[in-house]
Amino acid sequence: VRLALEAAGADYIDVARGAQADGLGVPALRALLREAGGFNPQFAPPFLKDGRLLIGQTAAILLHLGERHRLAPKSTAGRLWTQQIQLTITDLVDEAHDVHHPVSSALYYEDQKVAAAQRATDFRQRRIPKYVGWFERILSGKTKAKHRLVGARLTYADLSLFQAVDGLRYAFPRAMKRILKGAPQVAAHHRATAERPRIVAYLASERRLPFNENGVFRHYPELDA
Amino acid sequence: VRLALEAAGADYIDVARGAQADGLGVPALRALLREAGGFNPQFAPPFLKDGRLLIGQTAAILLHLGERHRLAPKSTAGRLWTQQIQLTITDLVDEAHDVHHPVSSALYYEDQKVAAAQRATDFRQRRIPKYVGWFERILSGKTKAKHRLVGARLTYADLSLFQAVDGLRYAFPRAMKRILKGAPQVAAHHRATAERPRIVAYLASERRLPFNENGVFRHYPELDA
Repeated sequence: VRLALEAAGADYIDVARGAQADGLGVPALRALLREAGGFNPQFAPPFLKDGRLLIGQTAAILLHLGERHRLAPKSTAGRLWTQQIQLTITDLVDEAHDVHHPVSSALYYEDQKVAAAQRATDFRQRRIPKYVGWFERILSGKTKAKHRLVGARLTYADLSLFQAVDGLRYAFPRAMKRILKGAPQVAAHHRATAERPRIVAYLASERRLPFNENGVFRHYPELDA
Repeated sequence: VRLALEAAGADYIDVARGAQADGLGVPALRALLREAGGFNPQFAPPFLKDGRLLIGQTAAILLHLGERHRLAPKSTAGRLWTQQIQLTITDLVDEAHDVHHPVSSALYYEDQKVAAAQRATDFRQRRIPKYVGWFERILSGKTKAKHRLVGARLTYADLSLFQAVDGLRYAFPRAMKRILKGAPQVAAHHRATAERPRIVAYLASERRLPFNENGVFRHYPELDA
């Protein structure tokens, strides 16, 4: 979501990560949710507030940003195809989370290491290659703009693929090195997206949170191979 | 997806489940995917073909059916809210699957029973109540049409909630009996949706596939309590 806002050059405030001294942070986020809570209570972060709209679920937020900031085609076919790719990236990201939390998100990783090791093997050997292979087919099937998943312009699906590949490279550096060797278009897509001026500026800024072991993409060396 | 098509009274063909003698079944599905495969290769079923459109990912298919068959509001806020609820139901359904396959979808349930038992406990005690509690809050917060998640008309989110509750009741009858006692609006929503004439007809027809132990919702008594 942050990548989409940055790529669009949108003016936004990251409420949850702001300082309480500035009237931001978790209390401000709670107030914002309470205010809108009557009409549409929220299930889980992230949320986007845009004027009177309050939207939850990453893929729904991106669906909106795609229309609002021209990060998706306008045609029905192009719009749905972009969202379809997004939902498949969402599935991949969910699976990346479940690798370190296969039994329960309420337990520590340390309390589910046996199942995590099994799931990691399956994820590296079968699931990542299946997803990356699909992205490679999409990019290879294009006759032009092979560094974009949909059409010739950047879409939110490109940004999400960038983020997913970045996260997977952080979490599974050895496996991803191997897998990306067999997926040159996905690797080229990642490089091309990283070189866009607004993305370069964002990645170098303090607004970009480094990957860490509290997030979705976690580097536990024992889960990589 | 079938429920949405049935509720809309749409004319559709279930290609994968049709007879090969009628030119349907898996070979016909493969041909259909090959035909469209150049432009947009597909990752996993289900797929909807509507004229020249080929759409994958349940939530994207429903987004389209919502617009095409008036199973969602037209306003931006209503459209996004319906999709947001759908994506949360999708998450619930994915978790229901991962209960019996916490380690790998490529292994049999019998080969991951230990992790499945742990995940089932977490799912019954923490996750289902969290999801059902959220649906209950949405329905309770409405001033009218409390048997509809969004506005006064039936949406695809209503049909998906119906299907999810139906599946959970099949898979976890004991836990769901308990949980639905604490969520009277969700229970009433389920009954009201089941009573719609087109849904009654569909549920009684051969087009409705009974829940079974090859699907997402599986009844393994040892995972219920």
